[in-house]
Amino acid sequence: MKKVVLLRHGESVWNNENRFTGWTDVDLSPKGIEEAALAGKILGEHGFRFGKAYTSYLKRAVKTLNGVLDVMNLDWIPVEKSWRLNEKHYGMLQGLNKAETAEKYGEAQVLVWRRSYDIAPAPLAADDERSPRIDLRYAELDEKDIPLTESLKETVERALPYWENVIVPSMSRYDEVIVAAHGNSLRAIIKFLKNISDAEIVSLNLPTAVPYVFEFDDNMLLAKDYFLGDPAEIEKKMAAVANQGKK
Amino acid sequence: MKKVVLLRHGESVWNNENRFTGWTDVDLSPKGIEEAALAGKILGEHGFRFGKAYTSYLKRAVKTLNGVLDVMNLDWIPVEKSWRLNEKHYGMLQGLNKAETAEKYGEAQVLVWRRSYDIAPAPLAADDERSPRIDLRYAELDEKDIPLTESLKETVERALPYWENVIVPSMSRYDEVIVAAHGNSLRAIIKFLKNISDAEIVSLNLPTAVPYVFEFDDNMLLAKDYFLGDPAEIEKKMAAVANQGKK
Repeated sequence: MKKVVLLRHGESVWNNENRFTGWTDVDLSPKGIEEAALAGKILGEHGFRFGKAYTSYLKRAVKTLNGVLDVMNLDWIPVEKSWRLNEKHYGMLQGLNKAETAEKYGEAQVLVWRRSYDIAPAPLAADDERSPRIDLRYAELDEKDIPLTESLKETVERALPYWENVIVPSMSRYDEVIVAAHGNSLRAIIKFLKNISDAEIVSLNLPTAVPYVFEFDDNMLLAKDYFLGDPAEIEKKMAAVANQGKK
Repeated sequence: MKKVVLLRHGESVWNNENRFTGWTDVDLSPKGIEEAALAGKILGEHGFRFGKAYTSYLKRAVKTLNGVLDVMNLDWIPVEKSWRLNEKHYGMLQGLNKAETAEKYGEAQVLVWRRSYDIAPAPLAADDERSPRIDLRYAELDEKDIPLTESLKETVERALPYWENVIVPSMSRYDEVIVAAHGNSLRAIIKFLKNISDAEIVSLNLPTAVPYVFEFDDNMLLAKDYFLGDPAEIEKKMAAVANQGKK
């Protein structure tokens, strides 16, 4: 049996301020660091022993992963980072306070931007100081691959190839891998694995730093999936994420 | 011009207790974590921007590297870990207090074990609970490659191939790389780069978490090398390391 654990990063300093983050490289909050350590503790208690780990180019995901691996004494395992696991790019919304944006544009428009499947926020200008096209970390990518905004659909389209071409093939070598990433890049994988419709995927609210286990048979067909941790606590976390866009 | 920064990990909880560590996977002390952050700050101030990082399988080196990269906002760069960058294996001394060992065997014998080039401490039994041959992280290695003790000579012999076959070839792609490792695996690289004799290398005491910069011309010939940081502070750190084996 093969297992993949999907893990949304812990609380960031901007989650805390209720701002649209996207590709902005904000840090974990102290609570986020604690959440990562707790996730590592739970995974250790359940006997996980990852052979390989995957994460994004964003420090809140990398540091969540580092915190998990450290608690599990797996600091030494190979970690592969990819921009394809980055959060959805939020275009011109990046940096804005979610409640303020809701007040300005109305909750409905914010919900469309946050939760519609194929409508992207207005794009950044290519030379905007927030633009990933002037960020050296993306310098090796084709310019056409570097988004200035994204719909969830577009996030799915760039995240899934990483799942299919990198993570799944590695499962022939490793029995257990962990993917520490973001609400929307993980939605992409979950949508695919559980065959969730475009309409339904937008209301899946992943709790922060709660290990989400996917078990596969030897042909990498999904057998079952479940969260690890206290169900009441997980429920509370999901509700908190769903409420972020409200005034 | 190409630059390689060699960085010895920050203080570990066993450095602090003056115990032989070797391949024991002990954590950084709080001071060690601070040292890593300071190293990152200094490297950032000097304009370094690493394209790739290398470290060992031991958490004190991995976490020093993670701390450095985080302060530099380079959490996202590729990191490659190898057992070949591990500390020298100290055989049956691993876990013993250095001062106690000096009292029991005499300072001279301890100095031989710590600082002779080709004499290794007595080996661990293969089934000793400290043996890396029963540690899953080394399960993919050939058993003959997994040491039960090492002389510095043997450490050099397994660390240098990693420098020559992995790090140097990567310099065609990256202008600046960092290697976060250990006193003796770094001695191996420095001995090679500066053509230091067997007799002299044993008295090179690298300070903890002080960036040691090596500049190369385009043919990877060494142009110059220097430490970054306050010279008086570096001097003090080197003396502290040299004094560890004394009663």
